[in-house]
Amino acid sequence: MELRNYIAEKRVLIEESLKKYIYNEIDAPVVREAMAYSLFAGGKRLRPILAIMACELFNGDVKKLMPFACSLEFIHTYSLIHDDLPAMNNDDYRRGKLTNHRVFGEGFAVLAGDALLNKAYEILLETISNDNRPEFIMAAQEISRAAGVKGMIGGQAMDLYYENKNISHEELKNIHDKKTGALLKASLTVGALIANAPKKDMETINEYGNLIGRAFQIADDILDIKGNKERLGKDTGKDEKKSTYVKYFGILESEKIAKETVDEAKKIISVYGDKGILFKNLADYIICRDI
Amino acid sequence: MELRNYIAEKRVLIEESLKKYIYNEIDAPVVREAMAYSLFAGGKRLRPILAIMACELFNGDVKKLMPFACSLEFIHTYSLIHDDLPAMNNDDYRRGKLTNHRVFGEGFAVLAGDALLNKAYEILLETISNDNRPEFIMAAQEISRAAGVKGMIGGQAMDLYYENKNISHEELKNIHDKKTGALLKASLTVGALIANAPKKDMETINEYGNLIGRAFQIADDILDIKGNKERLGKDTGKDEKKSTYVKYFGILESEKIAKETVDEAKKIISVYGDKGILFKNLADYIICRDI
Repeated sequence: MELRNYIAEKRVLIEESLKKYIYNEIDAPVVREAMAYSLFAGGKRLRPILAIMACELFNGDVKKLMPFACSLEFIHTYSLIHDDLPAMNNDDYRRGKLTNHRVFGEGFAVLAGDALLNKAYEILLETISNDNRPEFIMAAQEISRAAGVKGMIGGQAMDLYYENKNISHEELKNIHDKKTGALLKASLTVGALIANAPKKDMETINEYGNLIGRAFQIADDILDIKGNKERLGKDTGKDEKKSTYVKYFGILESEKIAKETVDEAKKIISVYGDKGILFKNLADYIICRDI
Repeated sequence: MELRNYIAEKRVLIEESLKKYIYNEIDAPVVREAMAYSLFAGGKRLRPILAIMACELFNGDVKKLMPFACSLEFIHTYSLIHDDLPAMNNDDYRRGKLTNHRVFGEGFAVLAGDALLNKAYEILLETISNDNRPEFIMAAQEISRAAGVKGMIGGQAMDLYYENKNISHEELKNIHDKKTGALLKASLTVGALIANAPKKDMETINEYGNLIGRAFQIADDILDIKGNKERLGKDTGKDEKKSTYVKYFGILESEKIAKETVDEAKKIISVYGDKGILFKNLADYIICRDI
């Protein structure tokens, strides 16, 4: 199947599950609307889709994966809401819509983020409570680590800490790997874990995940400069204070690095031959997101 | 043992565990200091102590309980940091010290709160990953529910939503039960779960937890009016916009309700005779916190 159709099909599945979690299980005033607003603001669902792709590559049961895929999207969405806050990036627009705090106020935006993060773990623990098979527990633990101070939050903290400071290429790579790469990589790992993929395959998928995670963030840095607000749906040129690849290497060199990183990812996934074709197309999509 | 000595002894145990989690496992810049700052700012450790008390009442293994007790404190601490933010209660002082955002800035305060919440679940999932016994999973699930939109976050959302609005006594009770009661009650439940307490005992301890949770919040409302800043270590009179018992019933009637609620809790726990004496003293302590 073509990547475009594959993504469209999986998105329907993911949105259905997300809606069930939000509308059947949550009744707190305003905060539910605030959670739903950002959760259904047109996200690409890249993390759940990566999880499903990895799960299907190793012949896993996608139905079993869905709670994990949804919790990845909950965590990603909370991180965007908090990241957009005036105290962080102070963004007014995301995906062409006003950011959460611009609609619901900062107080509810903080709470909606907290609620999404907590809900992710409620979903994971409920799933484990219903069936405590080892791969479920490993997958949940993988998500918790990737979202935490050794992963995403650690990357955000470094990003904030290094604002307006000079950093080395190694530090820049480390920030990117944690801030964006950790959760993208975890998405693939979780899909493979639920499918009980053998250790060697886990390593391959992890390596692929590392590379597309890095390429994704470099592409983001480039889009922040080159993209226009209409197409991206958010303010561009907001990264002035931040440490970015573009600042470090310039646009042309950054595009070259992104392309090389994607080519490396495609090479790694080529061991799966035709079965890995979606992964190759997805690697290209990572640096040229037009869907 | 006298309650005062019991609390002092358990606090040492809890602080040791908390320190291990923060200093051995976290290395992100600034955010680690921000997490540690609020975690070691002189909290009463009431939630972990309640968990330990319940665990010991039913002859459970406190060593097994410690990760759960710590995660309760992590969650409580995150909620305070986010609650103090300018967008929420806008508090400058807590426990006699500057609030987290006043020291580290709002960005790091948001991240430190996120990191503490996430770390709580990293600890819980690591514990389950090492030993997936059903009571561990049940305890972790209990914590996740109490912290979520049906518990603490839901209560905070209602609290924010009802600012400057008139509400009924039932709604007020509902806010209080969720905002403060849910996590206090869950602490007792978790202790009892880890000790594999029989169903009847679980019910008794839950009922006791409901009552002291409610009494705690009424006492808080009273302290906000009557307490002085030096003794409380935080600004008083901050609840003007909020729905409180004092606003609804006045101070004298609120004190009467708190006393009656505590007496009811003591009556319920009296089924354990001398073994329950600490719980009786703790119920008194809840409305007269002088330790």
